[in-house]
Amino acid sequence: MKNVEEVTAEVLLKIRPSLVESEKLMQLANELLEAVKKISSNYEGIIDARLEGSVAKGTWIRGREEVDIFVQFSKDVDKARLEKTILEVGNTVIKKFGGKTEVRYAEHPYVEGILNGVRVNIVACYKVEPGMWLSAVDRTPYHTEYIKSKLTGTLVDDVRLMKSFMLGCGVYGAELRVGGFSGYLAEILTINYGSFSNTIKAASNWRPPVYIDIEGHYADKREALEAFGRPSILVIDPVDKKRNVAAAVTDTKLSEFILASKLFFDSPTEKFFYIPGCVNKRITMTEVRRILRGRCILGLRLKVQQKPPDVLWGEIKHTLKGICRALEHEDFKVFRYDAWYEGNICIMLFELQELNLPTCYIHIGPPTHLDNALEFVKKHSDAQDTVAGPWVSGSRLYVLKSRDKTSVKDIIRMRLARGDISVSAGLMEAVKGAKIYKSGEELAKFASKNTSFRQFLFEFLEARPPFLAKHVQ
Amino acid sequence: MKNVEEVTAEVLLKIRPSLVESEKLMQLANELLEAVKKISSNYEGIIDARLEGSVAKGTWIRGREEVDIFVQFSKDVDKARLEKTILEVGNTVIKKFGGKTEVRYAEHPYVEGILNGVRVNIVACYKVEPGMWLSAVDRTPYHTEYIKSKLTGTLVDDVRLMKSFMLGCGVYGAELRVGGFSGYLAEILTINYGSFSNTIKAASNWRPPVYIDIEGHYADKREALEAFGRPSILVIDPVDKKRNVAAAVTDTKLSEFILASKLFFDSPTEKFFYIPGCVNKRITMTEVRRILRGRCILGLRLKVQQKPPDVLWGEIKHTLKGICRALEHEDFKVFRYDAWYEGNICIMLFELQELNLPTCYIHIGPPTHLDNALEFVKKHSDAQDTVAGPWVSGSRLYVLKSRDKTSVKDIIRMRLARGDISVSAGLMEAVKGAKIYKSGEELAKFASKNTSFRQFLFEFLEARPPFLAKHVQ
Repeated sequence: MKNVEEVTAEVLLKIRPSLVESEKLMQLANELLEAVKKISSNYEGIIDARLEGSVAKGTWIRGREEVDIFVQFSKDVDKARLEKTILEVGNTVIKKFGGKTEVRYAEHPYVEGILNGVRVNIVACYKVEPGMWLSAVDRTPYHTEYIKSKLTGTLVDDVRLMKSFMLGCGVYGAELRVGGFSGYLAEILTINYGSFSNTIKAASNWRPPVYIDIEGHYADKREALEAFGRPSILVIDPVDKKRNVAAAVTDTKLSEFILASKLFFDSPTEKFFYIPGCVNKRITMTEVRRILRGRCILGLRLKVQQKPPDVLWGEIKHTLKGICRALEHEDFKVFRYDAWYEGNICIMLFELQELNLPTCYIHIGPPTHLDNALEFVKKHSDAQDTVAGPWVSGSRLYVLKSRDKTSVKDIIRMRLARGDISVSAGLMEAVKGAKIYKSGEELAKFASKNTSFRQFLFEFLEARPPFLAKHVQ
Repeated sequence: MKNVEEVTAEVLLKIRPSLVESEKLMQLANELLEAVKKISSNYEGIIDARLEGSVAKGTWIRGREEVDIFVQFSKDVDKARLEKTILEVGNTVIKKFGGKTEVRYAEHPYVEGILNGVRVNIVACYKVEPGMWLSAVDRTPYHTEYIKSKLTGTLVDDVRLMKSFMLGCGVYGAELRVGGFSGYLAEILTINYGSFSNTIKAASNWRPPVYIDIEGHYADKREALEAFGRPSILVIDPVDKKRNVAAAVTDTKLSEFILASKLFFDSPTEKFFYIPGCVNKRITMTEVRRILRGRCILGLRLKVQQKPPDVLWGEIKHTLKGICRALEHEDFKVFRYDAWYEGNICIMLFELQELNLPTCYIHIGPPTHLDNALEFVKKHSDAQDTVAGPWVSGSRLYVLKSRDKTSVKDIIRMRLARGDISVSAGLMEAVKGAKIYKSGEELAKFASKNTSFRQFLFEFLEARPPFLAKHVQ
């Protein structure tokens, strides 16, 4: 077995860009920046343009090159004009370099293009004093400055290892779909603990709530935790004491990171890391059919509209929870659920203990000393769906009833028709018109035609984080 | 619809013995008492003999005549000699009258015989001052005196109605099998509220804890309830302030009595009463088969030894509870259970939500921040019976496991073999050798051969107290 140093040394060889690669990327970035600056001078209200992100900080991972250019607007510019202007600037520059553009959405729209295989984002922010933030990305230039001032010596490589580890373990990314660790958070953690392996060592011993206040903005941990509503992880932003850098991290991802750290120290391998060019093996339909055997999976296939991913994922998560609650309310036992989408198709999966409920169920009545005991007896004594009882046990009345519907498909259809499932408004129509898959064969059929869904279905059924998955190499 | 007065008047006509019947019974009782006294004079240590029970109080119901003769021993007599003597006295007297005797067991053995269709019990007690009780029945003569002093006017008829109502509703009898109201308790209640209908009216409005202290032994209800361990019903014995006359009443029987009282006032009929000579219709096998359809019944048939009923019922109840807990621990949902016995055959029935468990179940692991998280991952990752996972949700680990055994029969057998069911020591061997019925057809087969079990099986499946049962006329 290799030790931590051996593994990280080998990983670094694969994720650290070569000098030639670095220079090439820096050249592209600087050319783009100059072009943006030049065009920006035509627009009143643009103060400056800057390189941000991993290129600016020199922390990118080979194979995941990305150039982020931030155009800084004066705070007098209204949001509509800012949005209009950034699309014009972005489109012009990327087209000039021969790339195709696409408009993406975060809080504001921004322009994305691919140039020589490198993703380029041209983003608008306001140039403001710290604390006077007008949009979520206004902090970014300050973040970049802070990180650059702290990343001395080999610390850039430690940051690369950190991101590669988080990527490999499936906990990297602050977007709603992941609910994991942002790049900035990975950098803060590495700076705080002094190295990659120190960070992992520390994380393997974390016991939530985790609290990091690198610049000592708060005097008291308890007070700080209270002020932020007792999150499981609180990392005070060095450039903004009111912000939790880890606000997006879900309990699940935090716990997965802790577990991955423990496992990595227990038996260090490259398996924990994202290695460029290393592709997981493709799942065959034989494997899908084998893992589906004996499982009780309910699937809902719905048509969704194009929306910013975080908006759509918000709706999907809300709807997953609503359907789960409705199923549980009907006495189904829901083991797990998750969703996949691509283009305008979204598939929600629920793993259940069973797809059909037992015919009979107990209905609990009032204590016999209450007035409505009589009502209960009268209502149920001669009811068509009363199987046995009413009887008395302890102080209460009970009756055994038979279910009208027992199949999960019928029950979901019924509750949807009644409007008795809490579904996100944006998905209401889609869910009502959803196709319901009840058999594994129906799911397998769709998986045979769509490899992305096939991968998702297999991973859902395997139900392991990547660092525990057997099919991950 | 009749009103309460009309119904009770009609019931009284049927349950009140005629003058001729009364005189005949009193004559038999007095002749027996004389005979007992005469023989007793041959034994040193016997002080007196007395008529007790409903004959002494004049409160018996037609068709349920029973003569209780209590032989009072000096407190110097030891228990062994008392038991030997009472058997001799009882046997001699009953044989002299031409009856067959049987030894029955309560706290002490006593002699029972049937003479001219009347049950005769010859029982030993100690003659002691109040409070100096040496055996449970020493209070009886004081109870008899107390009740006789209070039963004035038509109150004897009200007591008859009370007993008949409790009998008809299935809540009469302090024995463990029933856990209901004793005759003495029925009398106390009637005396306390002044009439049958006042008692039922009061009971229909009871809200436990029920507290009755007819002689005002305690100043404070709360204090008294505390002193007795907060029972749901506390009726202070007029002749012994330390005794709860209702100690044997279970919450279920109390609640049934309250419900029956409510229902009776809502729509009074004779159905609520025990009427001599009125027999419920016999259940046909067609009815048994119909009611069995779709139900999930587990049956255990065991051989039991002759024991005093309260001893055997204690063991049966303990064992029922133990098996229920074991089933629930294995994730079965137990709706109800009960047992029947006759001769040396006992059958325990459990109604379950299903007779076979789902193949998969969730096993919950530790939070990932604990040290044993690693152990959990290692143990389950490559285990044969792991279906999916381990995965992380919130702070914890989970894994989906498959069950080795899913049938209730196999699971019960396995746990019995492992000694993993809390069974009464007296029934341990019987339960281990029990025949397990899993299908309704097996139960129906036995029911077709045994009408007493057939009746019990039907009533178990109907699951209604007699006052709600459809087959009760």
